[in-house]
Amino acid sequence: MRVLIIGAAGMVGRKLLDKIALEPAILGSEVTALTLVDVIEPTAPAALASIATCKALDLSTSGAADELIADRPDMIYNLAAVVSGEAEADFDKGYRVNLDGGRALLDAIRAEGLKEPYRPRFIFASSVAVFGAPFPEKIGDEFFTTPLTSYGTQKAIIELLIADYSRRGIFDGISIRLPTICVRPGKPNAAASGFFSNIIREPLVGLEAVLPVDESVRHWFASPRAAVGFFTHAATLDLEQVGPRRSLMMPGLSVTVAEQIAALEKIAGPKAVALIRNEPDHVIKEIVDGWSRDFAPKRAIALGFTAESDFEEIIRIHIEDELDGKIGV
Amino acid sequence: MRVLIIGAAGMVGRKLLDKIALEPAILGSEVTALTLVDVIEPTAPAALASIATCKALDLSTSGAADELIADRPDMIYNLAAVVSGEAEADFDKGYRVNLDGGRALLDAIRAEGLKEPYRPRFIFASSVAVFGAPFPEKIGDEFFTTPLTSYGTQKAIIELLIADYSRRGIFDGISIRLPTICVRPGKPNAAASGFFSNIIREPLVGLEAVLPVDESVRHWFASPRAAVGFFTHAATLDLEQVGPRRSLMMPGLSVTVAEQIAALEKIAGPKAVALIRNEPDHVIKEIVDGWSRDFAPKRAIALGFTAESDFEEIIRIHIEDELDGKIGV
Repeated sequence: MRVLIIGAAGMVGRKLLDKIALEPAILGSEVTALTLVDVIEPTAPAALASIATCKALDLSTSGAADELIADRPDMIYNLAAVVSGEAEADFDKGYRVNLDGGRALLDAIRAEGLKEPYRPRFIFASSVAVFGAPFPEKIGDEFFTTPLTSYGTQKAIIELLIADYSRRGIFDGISIRLPTICVRPGKPNAAASGFFSNIIREPLVGLEAVLPVDESVRHWFASPRAAVGFFTHAATLDLEQVGPRRSLMMPGLSVTVAEQIAALEKIAGPKAVALIRNEPDHVIKEIVDGWSRDFAPKRAIALGFTAESDFEEIIRIHIEDELDGKIGV
Repeated sequence: MRVLIIGAAGMVGRKLLDKIALEPAILGSEVTALTLVDVIEPTAPAALASIATCKALDLSTSGAADELIADRPDMIYNLAAVVSGEAEADFDKGYRVNLDGGRALLDAIRAEGLKEPYRPRFIFASSVAVFGAPFPEKIGDEFFTTPLTSYGTQKAIIELLIADYSRRGIFDGISIRLPTICVRPGKPNAAASGFFSNIIREPLVGLEAVLPVDESVRHWFASPRAAVGFFTHAATLDLEQVGPRRSLMMPGLSVTVAEQIAALEKIAGPKAVALIRNEPDHVIKEIVDGWSRDFAPKRAIALGFTAESDFEEIIRIHIEDELDGKIGV
């Protein structure tokens, strides 16, 4: 199987590659060629280096999409995006990359299929940002998409195109709406959602973390390991049973910050919790108030997608996958 | 007020122009300049001829949108579209006109506003085609958009862009999701929905009409007069109270074919009804089975949009507006 991964240098892309390196047939059959693309040149895991081609490429530049599809990959992942804050700050860049670049890829597949029959599987990383407040307490599978950011608008548009192109048989596509990934590895970052991971990741290695919101804030999470599972499951799932509604909210776990902290205490003790410093930030509080808190993703669960069912499990996965099983507090 | 109407040669466009001719301030203040555009050159009503400029123009040709917006109209209607059947049969044309042409117009407004502050009102004719079966018995305002045609996909995408551009202050936009317009004036046409009008319009002038589906079929209607009312009301409505969710399903009337026929009998007698010939057509039946039957458009009603409340009224409007008050059977 020939696989193309766009956004291969990102966190989920790298973890997906590690998974393929460990289990070369996880996407349904053995991966024989791998094209890895990102705006900075991605790196292949050592075990895959012999079959990997790595490219630094911006999907929105003219001809880029056609170049990637000319190889006729069987399985295509688009995990790349200008992130939410940047797409909001830079209107042109967000629409150019997330909408025009994303659409160019779909049209390149169509153009290739007009030359000679071709119908790859297409897996798109979408987002809860397709939804906009006010929300019901639990968002169901049939709730409408009224994004409140340009990023969410761009994701919702690509979702619509994927459903229509799939219905027409141009490719067999699916849009995976990801929960907030937690615990995000790496350094604390400036994203408004960063604290959800910071307050777990930093104390586990003996470092302070700032909590800018009230402990009653509720949010929707899945681990990086669950996210990789969504993308591998999407590769082998019979999409006929998904039907024409090709955008699926993934399962996750709805917990409050207080519940996050209680789970941290159970696993790493009060010394870890003492490293969390309350520092209310009204700007972040207001952004977070506009986010969805809970979902009832019945369709994805029925289709076999799975995530964690308690927050301690999410913390343990971080300790296993990122800290070699050792707590440093 | 300077007004631009794209799709001015269509049925709703022409009726909207007739209304403006009768009530020159109906859009909020007196219309002082009128640009009328369609793929065939539109005609202005005599009373408006002195202020009207009529152009044959395809919005999807390069520079067309910029040319129209260079005049900085205060009020912009986009009523133009490649219709459902054609957008399905001709992938490229549907996407080029309905998506790229529609988007070029939005981007031309943005470009104009970057030169010098500019924030017109933008009113878009959308469609129930943004929804796709299976449906709940009544479709609520928060039901999701999962179109089953490329036409519906293109409408849903422009709706998303209108909401995002409005949120950003590029223009003040609203998407008007129209019910099936009935009684459609003119000749019977090949549209799958044509029979809903044919079985009323033809018998009223003593002509036969074919009914291709069962009388139990239920559908959602508004008169051409109601449609014009939606578009004039959208011109003066305070869009601040609409909030960020800028796509509104318009009010209408849910009736069965049997109820249509009963209303026809009340108004024009059994002789008219006898002109309806049952001729079941499985293709049309299957298409119609995929259509929405009933809505609960609470938001639009609360915002003051109105339509007919019984089908006899819809027939009487047709007799008044198209037949000079006279039944010909």
